[in-house]
Amino acid sequence: MRKILIIGAGRSSSSLIKYLLDKSEKENLHVTIGDISIENASNKINNHPNGSAIVLDVFNEKQRIDAIQKSDIVISMLPAHLHIEVAKNCVTFNKHMVTASYISKEMKDLDKEVKDKGLIFMNEIGLDPGIDHMSAMQVINKIRDNGGEMLLFESFTGGLVAPESDTNLWNYKFTWNPRNVVLAGQGGASKFIQEGTYKYIPYHKLFRRTEFLTINGSGKFEAYANRDSLKYRSIYGLDGIPTMYRGTIRKVGFSRAWNVFVQLGMTDDSYKIEDSENMSYRDFTNSFLAYSPSDSVELKFRSYLKIDQDDVMWDKFLELDLFNAKKKVALKDATPAQILQKILMDSWVLESNDKDMIVMHHQFGYKNKTGNHQIESSMVIKGDDQTYTAMAKTVGLPVAMATLKILNGEITSTGVQLPINKEVYEPILKELEDYGVVFVEKDVPYLGYNPEVVMG
Amino acid sequence: MRKILIIGAGRSSSSLIKYLLDKSEKENLHVTIGDISIENASNKINNHPNGSAIVLDVFNEKQRIDAIQKSDIVISMLPAHLHIEVAKNCVTFNKHMVTASYISKEMKDLDKEVKDKGLIFMNEIGLDPGIDHMSAMQVINKIRDNGGEMLLFESFTGGLVAPESDTNLWNYKFTWNPRNVVLAGQGGASKFIQEGTYKYIPYHKLFRRTEFLTINGSGKFEAYANRDSLKYRSIYGLDGIPTMYRGTIRKVGFSRAWNVFVQLGMTDDSYKIEDSENMSYRDFTNSFLAYSPSDSVELKFRSYLKIDQDDVMWDKFLELDLFNAKKKVALKDATPAQILQKILMDSWVLESNDKDMIVMHHQFGYKNKTGNHQIESSMVIKGDDQTYTAMAKTVGLPVAMATLKILNGEITSTGVQLPINKEVYEPILKELEDYGVVFVEKDVPYLGYNPEVVMG
Repeated sequence: MRKILIIGAGRSSSSLIKYLLDKSEKENLHVTIGDISIENASNKINNHPNGSAIVLDVFNEKQRIDAIQKSDIVISMLPAHLHIEVAKNCVTFNKHMVTASYISKEMKDLDKEVKDKGLIFMNEIGLDPGIDHMSAMQVINKIRDNGGEMLLFESFTGGLVAPESDTNLWNYKFTWNPRNVVLAGQGGASKFIQEGTYKYIPYHKLFRRTEFLTINGSGKFEAYANRDSLKYRSIYGLDGIPTMYRGTIRKVGFSRAWNVFVQLGMTDDSYKIEDSENMSYRDFTNSFLAYSPSDSVELKFRSYLKIDQDDVMWDKFLELDLFNAKKKVALKDATPAQILQKILMDSWVLESNDKDMIVMHHQFGYKNKTGNHQIESSMVIKGDDQTYTAMAKTVGLPVAMATLKILNGEITSTGVQLPINKEVYEPILKELEDYGVVFVEKDVPYLGYNPEVVMG
Repeated sequence: MRKILIIGAGRSSSSLIKYLLDKSEKENLHVTIGDISIENASNKINNHPNGSAIVLDVFNEKQRIDAIQKSDIVISMLPAHLHIEVAKNCVTFNKHMVTASYISKEMKDLDKEVKDKGLIFMNEIGLDPGIDHMSAMQVINKIRDNGGEMLLFESFTGGLVAPESDTNLWNYKFTWNPRNVVLAGQGGASKFIQEGTYKYIPYHKLFRRTEFLTINGSGKFEAYANRDSLKYRSIYGLDGIPTMYRGTIRKVGFSRAWNVFVQLGMTDDSYKIEDSENMSYRDFTNSFLAYSPSDSVELKFRSYLKIDQDDVMWDKFLELDLFNAKKKVALKDATPAQILQKILMDSWVLESNDKDMIVMHHQFGYKNKTGNHQIESSMVIKGDDQTYTAMAKTVGLPVAMATLKILNGEITSTGVQLPINKEVYEPILKELEDYGVVFVEKDVPYLGYNPEVVMG
């Protein structure tokens, strides 16, 4: 039996665990799930004969080391900042490791030791980062292999609600960590490059500088820029590319309305609101508007933010109950962002039979001897239910597949890795298709950066 | 001879030094000026028989202690964060100390030791903080002494250019540290209270939430909110006051145009612009605008920021040469804020015969047995020339006066102090009048917070 240790049995590990248990007979696997809650871990095993659940508190060094020593490979599904202690133990006890998280500086620093010991630490092999790397590198390498030169790379991902479960005016529900949604885009200007010119968007303009995307069969979407679109420029071998942009996908109209929260200052997480506990939703809204003895909060809001009375955006705020004088915030010493999150969670919760949906879309522009060309590649996948969500599938399945391929000697490059080599992405993308992760590629006319420019 | 040591002979110490040297004969004073540049220090002494100049590097402990030991009182005109080492030496060697800076946490922590030794450390006795405290407390205490209850306190200060030197469309020149002007308002939301309701303004809205002030004889001004208007609420004894607001004064129209820099992201000091050294002013501007193969930077700017073609605001940006493709930024690895500062310094420099102007304006609302009342108190002072600027006078003279009054035993409260007690502010405000710092007080109808509200 090859022994796999999975640390962390959260929502995103359901598809990962199911994949490995389903293959356990044929592939001769034993899967141990360690979680701070034994119940969580046991539920995921569901009495499968090749699975076992253990209590594992990652801060308990003895527990951690015991479990790691007994395994052949370790998957960490913990929050990203908790990987490093696990990683150090894996180096010490000669175990391979797999995560779906960005490679941290500390993780990167282990590279030489990991290589020296002949180990493989595969990271960034979830959805984003993960499937985005693999699906992009597959097309980029194909273009290069055919003698093409890259002119443009744009990549967009969004975690959304499936159309059949889309029941509110925002066309959005929380399918993932709500806090990350509220704080998205903060921490500095967004940076990208268009036709050789670096561009910078401050946070307070981010949601007014969206781009539209049309994805065949799924309609029109919008996207706002990620913080640093150039993070993978060198890693993908795209130094010198004139246009590179990465963004987050939302349904059309979301960002324009979200911008209102940004403008008001409701997404600020840096200070506490006075007496937040006893405020009503209406009081909270009013604290960002000028004082007036004669005007309503509603009118001040509309006037300040220039919202016409027949603008559907207005109904979005009514839907959230932002002007309700009876609903209490009931959070002590809360920041604006924490209060906004609470208000949104009243409205944007996935119901028990709602399904989520992941959308990924890439655009590749290149030139070759015959001229300029463009390829679009899109993937849309829905969740099966609240357990096997699209998010759980797209995050967990590549992790599971990489783990098995490392055990089977099919992935061989040692060191602290991410999935940008053909040996990794080709077989995993192929297998992912069986699970509904299918990229549809098509050739389109090359339009450069701005497809809507009126020429002449 | 009573020996005064002044550390730091920068621009703001000219009036301070002149005051003390002018009084030196009659008051039996010797004034030593210690500066890193002996030339600086000597120039300020100008061969006065009761003055001497020494080299003093504040980071050189021996030099610092030698100079402090030889003095009876020490004035630190250093940047605020450098006061603390001087203060510790003053405690050790039993010297009084005076600064024009905010009391830092470290300075506050010395209070007990300072008191135990019977010393006086007078701080915040420049302009703002300084004259603002004194002129406000004088009126507040008068209102209280007459049985009034404070309802409203608003306080505004601005360092501007005098009308006769006001030659650009912004009605603004740098009369003080340009970097502080570019970064003003950053670092978190502004907070104040109006009619019992806490209000918060995020930085990106700060310059669109200005208030107008009419100051008799000097016309109309505008003000934007300071970061924390409530900082002195307890110190002034105003806990429970329904309205308290502090702001920075500019000429009307400045803030609306400045807001454009904020919206673009040009005031951001948190990241570096790629290849800033070789950029033109036009390239810099364009880096905050969307890419377009067909539209000019000018049109993109106007469209993005919704500036009508006949709006005078547009001419303000042309005046700054923001679209010049030939002028180079010529700053390596510069932040947007650093580049903006350079562009502004091309245009907003005080010419050799320009004069600066300080405007301070307070509003006090209160109730007594006869009803609600309001007092306005305003002070406007111009500089004499580029040496004895309004800034140098208003910052330096109160420091000088407090120093002499401590030596003469007229100020007696020991400890780490600020000038909110009658024994300090009454005589200093009186004497300041001889130097042109005159507050004009008048009773006006009580209008509460919003004087422009249309009733009924």
